[in-house]
Amino acid sequence: MSEDLFRLDAVAQAERVRRGQVSPRELVDAAIARIEKTNPAVHAVIHERFERARAEAASPELPDGPFRGVPILMKDIGGQSAGDPHHAGMRCLRDARWTEGADSFFTAKLRRAGFVILGRTNTPELALMATTEPDAYGPTRNPWSLAHSAGGSSGGAAAAVAAGMVAVAHASDGGGSIRIPAAHCALVGLKPTRGRSSFGPGLGERWGGFSVEFAVSKSVRDAAALLDVVNGPMPGDPYFAPPPERPYAQEVGAAPPRLRIGLLQRGPRGLAVHEDCVAAVYATARALEGLGHSVEEAHPEALDEPKAVASFVVVVSCSVARALDAWGEKLGRTLGEDDVEPLTWALAEQGRAIGAARYLEAIEFVHGFGRRVAAWWESGFDLLLTPTTAAPPPRIGELASSKEVPLAPFLRAAPYGAFTSSFNLTGQPAISLPVHWNAEGLPLGAQLVAAYAREDLLLRVASEIEQVAPWHNRHANV
Amino acid sequence: MSEDLFRLDAVAQAERVRRGQVSPRELVDAAIARIEKTNPAVHAVIHERFERARAEAASPELPDGPFRGVPILMKDIGGQSAGDPHHAGMRCLRDARWTEGADSFFTAKLRRAGFVILGRTNTPELALMATTEPDAYGPTRNPWSLAHSAGGSSGGAAAAVAAGMVAVAHASDGGGSIRIPAAHCALVGLKPTRGRSSFGPGLGERWGGFSVEFAVSKSVRDAAALLDVVNGPMPGDPYFAPPPERPYAQEVGAAPPRLRIGLLQRGPRGLAVHEDCVAAVYATARALEGLGHSVEEAHPEALDEPKAVASFVVVVSCSVARALDAWGEKLGRTLGEDDVEPLTWALAEQGRAIGAARYLEAIEFVHGFGRRVAAWWESGFDLLLTPTTAAPPPRIGELASSKEVPLAPFLRAAPYGAFTSSFNLTGQPAISLPVHWNAEGLPLGAQLVAAYAREDLLLRVASEIEQVAPWHNRHANV
Repeated sequence: MSEDLFRLDAVAQAERVRRGQVSPRELVDAAIARIEKTNPAVHAVIHERFERARAEAASPELPDGPFRGVPILMKDIGGQSAGDPHHAGMRCLRDARWTEGADSFFTAKLRRAGFVILGRTNTPELALMATTEPDAYGPTRNPWSLAHSAGGSSGGAAAAVAAGMVAVAHASDGGGSIRIPAAHCALVGLKPTRGRSSFGPGLGERWGGFSVEFAVSKSVRDAAALLDVVNGPMPGDPYFAPPPERPYAQEVGAAPPRLRIGLLQRGPRGLAVHEDCVAAVYATARALEGLGHSVEEAHPEALDEPKAVASFVVVVSCSVARALDAWGEKLGRTLGEDDVEPLTWALAEQGRAIGAARYLEAIEFVHGFGRRVAAWWESGFDLLLTPTTAAPPPRIGELASSKEVPLAPFLRAAPYGAFTSSFNLTGQPAISLPVHWNAEGLPLGAQLVAAYAREDLLLRVASEIEQVAPWHNRHANV
Repeated sequence: MSEDLFRLDAVAQAERVRRGQVSPRELVDAAIARIEKTNPAVHAVIHERFERARAEAASPELPDGPFRGVPILMKDIGGQSAGDPHHAGMRCLRDARWTEGADSFFTAKLRRAGFVILGRTNTPELALMATTEPDAYGPTRNPWSLAHSAGGSSGGAAAAVAAGMVAVAHASDGGGSIRIPAAHCALVGLKPTRGRSSFGPGLGERWGGFSVEFAVSKSVRDAAALLDVVNGPMPGDPYFAPPPERPYAQEVGAAPPRLRIGLLQRGPRGLAVHEDCVAAVYATARALEGLGHSVEEAHPEALDEPKAVASFVVVVSCSVARALDAWGEKLGRTLGEDDVEPLTWALAEQGRAIGAARYLEAIEFVHGFGRRVAAWWESGFDLLLTPTTAAPPPRIGELASSKEVPLAPFLRAAPYGAFTSSFNLTGQPAISLPVHWNAEGLPLGAQLVAAYAREDLLLRVASEIEQVAPWHNRHANV
C-alpha cells in the first residue's frame, strides 16, 4: 500500500480519502514509513511529530477540508505550528529548544483544509542561502544525487517531496527559495504574488515584502488547489494580493489563449549561464511553441540593472540585523558572533551599518524597478520564460560557510538566484517547472513569470506544459 | 451664473455639463472668478494655471469622462502635473523653481475623468504638520474664520473647497492630513484604504505605507464618484487595495444594514479632548441611533498603546531624512539646515540617527498594531466613531515653527492627529464628516473608521448621515 501511495500527489491522496479507499491514518503511516526509509540518506526532516500526527489523523476532529488526511511537512522558518520547534536554521534556537506556542495563520489554514503535519524540514540559517546546509542541522541531500545540494532555502521541503515523503511541503521564497530547490529536485515551485498568503500573526511582511509563504509540490494541480487554501487576507494584514476571479483549481486543464512569451536565456547583468540550464529553457520554449504559443527572445531591460542586486542585498542584510535583534529579544539576551554562522553575522554587521534613510532609498529603488519591469508586461507580453537557475545543483559543501571570507557563500550562490530574485523585488508570481535532466541525471528547471497577481495564467500554462512534458514519470531513485 | 455654480458639488457640475446647461469653459471661468475673489484672504492656491486651464476646458480634446469640465486643484505635494511647480511646501524647491515633467498616475486619472486643473494648493513643508503655514508660502486661512488654521497638511485643499473655489481638491493623508483639514473646514474627508490609489510612477508608497492620495470634497457622492475614478492598480504598484464589488457611487443612498458602532469619545493614551469635539461626536452618535444603528462606548484597546505614536514618529522621521536626500539628489546638492524649516531639520536629524534595523523594528510593531486593531473589528463591530480631532481649529501661528524648540510644533499638534494617525498605521479607511459647529462658528468633525478595504460601508453610512445632518446648508462666509 504505502509503496504506491507515496507516488500520488496531494489531490489524488485526498480523493482516495474522500472515496473511503484509504484512511487519513493509513496515509500518515505510509508517509512516516517513507520518511523512515529515505530520511536517513536525504536528511530533509529535522523535527518529527509522528505520534501527534497519527493521533490527529485518527481523530474525529480532523477537519473535513479539501485535503483531509493528507500529510504535509512545514519548513523550519515561518509556518509556525503550535507546540513544535521553530529554529529558523539557527544553532542558538536549537540549543534553546525554542518552540512556538501557536499556529501561524498559514498553518491554521492548512490544518483547516485537513492536512496533517508530520514534522518540520531543514533550512539554511534564516533562509539566507540557495543551499540547505545549516551548521545547526547539517546538509540536506538531493534525492536525485546524494552528493548534490537540494537547493535552498526550502531545500528540506523540496528534498522531502522529491523523496516521496509527502506530496506537498510548506516552503517560502524571498529570493528564489521555493523555485531554486524545486528546480534542483524536479518539482513544481510556485512563488505566488506578494501578499498572497499571510505572515500573521507574527509578522506583516518579511524582507521588505520580498518573501511569500507557499509550498513545493509534485503537480501543478496540487499547487493550484493549495493556493486556493492559503489565498485570502487575514485580519490586520498590512496589504494583500487581489483575489482571483475563480478558484485556481479551475485553471488546471483550462487552455490559455495563444500567449506571447519572451525568452531570456542569457544571464542578467552578464552572468554566465550553464549549458544545461540553456537546454532546459529551450526545451520549454519548444514545448510552448508546440502548444501554439509565440516565443521570442525578449525580456524587460530592467533585469540587467546592477542596482537591483545591490538593493536586494541592502534589504536582506538590514532584515538579518533586525532578525537577530528580534530573536535576541525573544531569547532574552543579545545574540553575538558565536551564536550564528559567519555569513549571517557578516550580513547582520553590514545591515547594522545601514541607516534607515539608506534602507528607504533601496526600497524606493525597488519600487521604481518594479515599475520598469512591469512596463515590459504592459508592452504586450504575457509571460517571461527563463532558466530557473544559471547552474545545475551544486555539490554539498560547494557553498559552505567560511569564517575567513564570510560573504563568500552568498557571492558563490549568485548563479542560483540570478533569474529568481528580481521577481521578489517586483512581487510578481513565478513558477519553476521540472522540464529537463542533464547527462548526470540532475534536474533543471525553467521559470515562467507572469504579471502581478496573474497566478491564474501561470497555473494554466504550467498545466498545459505538464501534459506534454510529463515529469510524473521520472522519480528520484532514493 | 458663477455665484450659483460655486455652491454645486462636482457631480452636479458634471451633470450640468452633460446636459449642456453649462460649458466646461464656463465652469472654469466661474471657479477662477471665485479664486480671484476669495484667495487673497484665504491663500489656498499658491500656483495658478488659469490660462492653460481655460484652454484645456475649451479644447475638443478634453476627455469625456464622468467629471468632464469640472475644475479641480492639486496639492503642492504628490499629484504631480506636467509642467507645473511642485514644491512640497519647501523654500528650497520654490527658490529652485522646481517643476515636474509629467503627470503622476493619480493626476492622469483625474484628467482622463475630465477634470480641469486650475492650480496647486498650499501645504506645510513635506506635509509634516496639522496646519498649513509653510515658510515658503505663508499661512492658509480657514474660510470659516480667517484668524484660524485650515488644518493640515491638506489645508490649502480644504480651504479652497470651503471657500467655494472648487468642489473637490486633491489631498493626501499620512497621519490625518485629509481628515484634519476636512474637520476644520466642514468638509467630507475620506482617507481611503492603503494602496487604494497609486503613488506612481515616482514612488511605490509614502511614509512606509501610511500615506494615501485622495481628496477633500463637499459631498459624500463626490467622494464616492472620485474614488471610482482613482481606484485601481497601476503597473508596478508594489501592492494595492482590493477592488470594490461594485462602483462606490452605488453606495451613496443605499441603506446599510443595522450597524454595530463603537464610540470612542475620550482621548487615546489619556489625551484631553475639547468639549466641542465631544459634542460633535455625540451629535453624530445620536444621528446614527436615529437611523437605527446601535452605538455603544467601545474601541480597540490597542489605540491606547503609546508605542504606536513612537513608531509613527520613527517612520516619519526616517522618511523625512530620505526625502531630504532624494530632493538633494534631484537638485544636485546636499540640503542643509538653512534649506528647510526647523521642524523638518529636527525630524531629519532624528531620522538620520536611526538605523535600518530600528526602522524595521518600528514597521514590525506597526504591523502587529494593525493586527490588534483589526481584532476589534473581527469581534463584531462594523464601525468606530470618534471625534476627528481632539481640539477645534487652532489659531494661525499657534503651531508655528520655532528655531529654539524645533520639535515643539509637532508636539503641540498632538491633539489634531490623536484620533487619525492610528489608521494610517493600520491602513484602514476612515472618513471625517462635518457634523458640528461650536459657539464660535468653527467646524468640528466626526470620524468613522471601517475595517480594511471597506470604503463601501463608510460611504453608505456617510451618505445616510448626510441626509439627516445636512451640512450643505451651511457655508463659510468668505
